[in-house]
Amino acid sequence: MTSPAPATRAYRRLSVEERRRQLLAAALTLFAHRPPDEVSLDDVAEAAGVSRPLVYRYFPGGKQQLYETALRSAADQLELCFTEPPAGPPTERVSRVLDRYLVFVDEHDAGFSALLRGGSVAETSRTTAIVDEVRRAAAEQILVHIGVARPGPRLRMMVRTWIAAVEAASLIWLDEEKQPPAGELRDWLVDHLIALLAATAATDEETAEAVRELVALEKPSGPMGVLARRVGPVVGDAGGLL
Amino acid sequence: MTSPAPATRAYRRLSVEERRRQLLAAALTLFAHRPPDEVSLDDVAEAAGVSRPLVYRYFPGGKQQLYETALRSAADQLELCFTEPPAGPPTERVSRVLDRYLVFVDEHDAGFSALLRGGSVAETSRTTAIVDEVRRAAAEQILVHIGVARPGPRLRMMVRTWIAAVEAASLIWLDEEKQPPAGELRDWLVDHLIALLAATAATDEETAEAVRELVALEKPSGPMGVLARRVGPVVGDAGGLL
Repeated sequence: MTSPAPATRAYRRLSVEERRRQLLAAALTLFAHRPPDEVSLDDVAEAAGVSRPLVYRYFPGGKQQLYETALRSAADQLELCFTEPPAGPPTERVSRVLDRYLVFVDEHDAGFSALLRGGSVAETSRTTAIVDEVRRAAAEQILVHIGVARPGPRLRMMVRTWIAAVEAASLIWLDEEKQPPAGELRDWLVDHLIALLAATAATDEETAEAVRELVALEKPSGPMGVLARRVGPVVGDAGGLL
Repeated sequence: MTSPAPATRAYRRLSVEERRRQLLAAALTLFAHRPPDEVSLDDVAEAAGVSRPLVYRYFPGGKQQLYETALRSAADQLELCFTEPPAGPPTERVSRVLDRYLVFVDEHDAGFSALLRGGSVAETSRTTAIVDEVRRAAAEQILVHIGVARPGPRLRMMVRTWIAAVEAASLIWLDEEKQPPAGELRDWLVDHLIALLAATAATDEETAEAVRELVALEKPSGPMGVLARRVGPVVGDAGGLL
């Protein structure tokens, strides 16, 4: 409820780049916690404490341009989460990546759900392309930790389906009021990856070779050893059928 | 290129319901093999051999209404694919469901991809709701074969993430010119489900109990036994870490 004069004075305090960043930060916060269809340009102007025409001056494409710019910025931030030095037990590296990913999901809850569930008018071939790029970046990083730079079709499909499973689990987690605790979900997702690697190794020689090398990098008390010890009896029963 | 008079005569040969079904069949075929944005009302009229105004008489909402009606019809057809008597080894039942599902994916390739990839203007909250309903129906049917009617959160999440993985694998399969052969993809997806059940059983008592009962229903030569025998050495190596 500021009068035009002080507001105009306030605008002058920021450079063009600072103002742009301030508007984008306001948009990011709004789009993180509400579906895009429930965010208006007025909301962004109000959150940034500026006038609607000023928002248009910086984002002539209006809400859609703000949404896509905010999404681009969130995607860059998410891709940074995936980066993890390729040293130490691979399951520990994947656990750390998943920890950062789940913090991101937690902090962008409603926006993350709306984006991945689809059906919004703000969704375009451009927003879909950004989401696909993030998925590709995630797959590449996971392959770094599996230790295979140029995977064959089966291993590539395995990694991409696991990433789809992680996304689906994240959406369910948000629906269920972020239960179980993030650490428990992370451990289950790591077990899921180990199980999928083992099952794929059963029929794909490249994956079998990768798993042999991964096992050698794991700690005795790590998730792979613990899962093997726990699954042993279940597998043993099934083996007993033979 | 028929003149109006014979065309009008031809229209009279079909009842209202027959004409509606004929238009819908033409729309289904077009939407199955092209993204919705590449199908026009004129294409539907031409494929059905009728005039554009006649299509509008039956579908006043135009292309969007035709698309949603075709999607509704395809969703009903897909849900029928999921139905499988709850008798015999569970992995054989799931294999048969996957066979029918992959035939559906094969027959609706471009439309299936476009729908699940998103970013089309034809995608609305209504089309998203139809896709979600199919996913829910799929999860319910899989739970029938796992033998748990009212699953706890972990088992429910497990089934829903597996379904997301199946969808992702189907999209990759379509991208890669339907390679590997459908039967090989089906076997890998069954192995994926078994592995996920085993990994989830490691930390969830309800799943462990369900797996014990499933093992008792399997044939010695079935996918569960074969996978257990093949994964054994891999798991053994990991266990050797302990």
